[in-house]
Amino acid sequence: MADRLISIGLLGYGTVGSNVYQLLENQQQQIARAINGGFAVKKILVRDLSVPRSGAAAELFTDNFEDILEDEEITLVIELMGGVEPAFDYITAVLERGKAVVTANKQLLSQQGAYLFQLAEKNNTSILFEASVAGAIPIIKVLRESMVAADLDSISGIVNGTTNYILSEMERTGAKYENALARAQEWGYAEADPVDDINGKDAAAKMAILASIGFHTPVTLKDVANEGIEYITSLDIAYAKELGFSIKLLGIARLYDEKINVRVYPALVPHGHPLASVTGAYNAVFLKGSSIDEIMLSGPGAGGVETASAVISDMASTVRQAGMRGSATQLAYSDLAFYEDADVVSTFFLRLEVQDDPGVLASIAQVFGENNVSIESVIQKGRGVHAELVMIFHPVKEESFMAAIEAVKQLSVVKSEPRPIRVEGIQHEQ
Amino acid sequence: MADRLISIGLLGYGTVGSNVYQLLENQQQQIARAINGGFAVKKILVRDLSVPRSGAAAELFTDNFEDILEDEEITLVIELMGGVEPAFDYITAVLERGKAVVTANKQLLSQQGAYLFQLAEKNNTSILFEASVAGAIPIIKVLRESMVAADLDSISGIVNGTTNYILSEMERTGAKYENALARAQEWGYAEADPVDDINGKDAAAKMAILASIGFHTPVTLKDVANEGIEYITSLDIAYAKELGFSIKLLGIARLYDEKINVRVYPALVPHGHPLASVTGAYNAVFLKGSSIDEIMLSGPGAGGVETASAVISDMASTVRQAGMRGSATQLAYSDLAFYEDADVVSTFFLRLEVQDDPGVLASIAQVFGENNVSIESVIQKGRGVHAELVMIFHPVKEESFMAAIEAVKQLSVVKSEPRPIRVEGIQHEQ
Repeated sequence: MADRLISIGLLGYGTVGSNVYQLLENQQQQIARAINGGFAVKKILVRDLSVPRSGAAAELFTDNFEDILEDEEITLVIELMGGVEPAFDYITAVLERGKAVVTANKQLLSQQGAYLFQLAEKNNTSILFEASVAGAIPIIKVLRESMVAADLDSISGIVNGTTNYILSEMERTGAKYENALARAQEWGYAEADPVDDINGKDAAAKMAILASIGFHTPVTLKDVANEGIEYITSLDIAYAKELGFSIKLLGIARLYDEKINVRVYPALVPHGHPLASVTGAYNAVFLKGSSIDEIMLSGPGAGGVETASAVISDMASTVRQAGMRGSATQLAYSDLAFYEDADVVSTFFLRLEVQDDPGVLASIAQVFGENNVSIESVIQKGRGVHAELVMIFHPVKEESFMAAIEAVKQLSVVKSEPRPIRVEGIQHEQ
Repeated sequence: MADRLISIGLLGYGTVGSNVYQLLENQQQQIARAINGGFAVKKILVRDLSVPRSGAAAELFTDNFEDILEDEEITLVIELMGGVEPAFDYITAVLERGKAVVTANKQLLSQQGAYLFQLAEKNNTSILFEASVAGAIPIIKVLRESMVAADLDSISGIVNGTTNYILSEMERTGAKYENALARAQEWGYAEADPVDDINGKDAAAKMAILASIGFHTPVTLKDVANEGIEYITSLDIAYAKELGFSIKLLGIARLYDEKINVRVYPALVPHGHPLASVTGAYNAVFLKGSSIDEIMLSGPGAGGVETASAVISDMASTVRQAGMRGSATQLAYSDLAFYEDADVVSTFFLRLEVQDDPGVLASIAQVFGENNVSIESVIQKGRGVHAELVMIFHPVKEESFMAAIEAVKQLSVVKSEPRPIRVEGIQHEQ
């Protein structure tokens, strides 16, 4: 591993900025593996130096953008201020110096994306922006690099977590819009002033970015009509549910006759559709094309650490694109040891055919108990001469469970080969 | 756009090979955009030249591997033969010449991946293999490039379409295992000899590849214990369903105490879990990590064109990695026109408060009819003095629908502002 360090300038130190700083500290080993070197934050631009901040050392902070722009060692600038100005001026200046940019700024990109992409190209550098849409979901990279021959004809999805949380709450609890919004604010899923979430403008900015990349055409915020969820009532949601639909705020970019249409509006989605199962503050993007059928990516739409994770992946991609890395094929690396199957703690389901006698359940339960295996629930069903026990167990070390199964097998009341099946996807402590 | 052509050698011309050839022909414009040039298939290796083949011209075919290996113009070789031998020897020879490789060969990678990755690195070239796992789902690129700071602790999912189809059919129809298998074979979702699908070995090979990349440690097929679905009965599925679970064949790679455990087994998954909604021959991969929470990617697991699409994305990535492309930031490109919102054909849902009089529905239906808007279904509910109509319409040009709404608004029997909501995610012809 080389010791090559890439010097970073950070513009902004809010939730995402401080999470980026923290992750860079915590994930040094992972980052070293990805870029064959490391990132060192050299300067951080903030508006007011007098505000106390945790994480980074005080001497890293500056309130003068020129300190970062003029620093020859800084080759990569991370913009996390948000908003169009002064971010636009700063990024323009940075790209004109040939420094690379990583940004999470959806407002700016949805209005000035095409200009900035060309500016980067002209100056032989790059601007990456995974974190601008759908948080930790790597939709930008997938659209740019994995859909080369996909022949995409639509990009649709849930790209605003606030409204998805509100609509999910309304459907789940029957709550009115106002109450669900209040709950979203209480839980931090909605800002104090959520107007751009609610009216679909935030989603429209994200769809403009996705459509630009997916259809290779500049699409700006003003090209995307947006309808919001202000007029969705609990009655709409109740009737939709009765008819087998959920209501979601969707962004939809589609090709019709080789022309683009991009819009944001609330829509009914049938319960069986993958987008209907995306609930809470999660996001999902659905890609359709003749060569890929349908692909969906889903995950947390926002959150400081998730967005920071996307920023850092972009930082690594910047380094790879600039050809600074030895190789992109190096894979086997850290050589972790293996953990034995027998030591894993699992939850089991077991269906067992037994003799239909009183006391059978007791004798079986006793054997499990002797092997320290604890039954969580059991259903007993009569099926002709035999009864059937359907059991779910508390999480247990697999070795102990298999020993119990061996003992149970020996019981004369057990009439079938016990074939336990594991249970996954439920919460339990290891 | 440059005219630079990259000469390709193709090893194998089965379903995926012929689809790759076809997609390269059909998607030239998309590919040109991605790599600033094009791919030209120069030679195709097949076993038996006497078999007639469609698509590529007869003179491209050869039965001599040396023709491809020794051709100096061929800088990229696509291996789509499958199986360990002779693919291993061929790929080894190709990498030793410094040519790049793209492969879809899960068997080979799950056994010799670490060796081949190192060989590529030593020869300053690359081997990419997106198509080896989960067809069109870009899970390999996401794991390698978008999870740099993700701090992954588990990679799990449904990575075998045949078994997922069988289990879905058993749950949907109550069919026995044998009958569901027969149906899968009839529909082409299972091979005549599906033993490696059924016993979990195919999934184990894919999980070995995913775990290797996700945890940066060589994991081979022999490190992955596999249990199959042979012993899953319709009773297991019925009881699981009763308890709120679906049964899925899962591949699970997890870290315990910084040690890796990778296995494949059938498991109960709760109905609310995203993996439970992945049905039929689809695949899904679920990534968990402290910095990303949970991300899921789902899509078609196999299919000639979907796999070919993944192969071509890898071909483009190879070119990008080799730094042969002018720029990776060029985005706005083909400049498609916009399609007017008013011309889009949509399906609408409308809840309307109306006077509770006889003849009201008729008068409303008449206005819609006059505007060529056709009602698909209507529910009428009394709510106090007013009645409520809940209507879903047949797909209609939005302009016509909005004109109808304007006319309906004028009716004195209509007591609420009509606020139609679109319906998405259902099948209809445009």
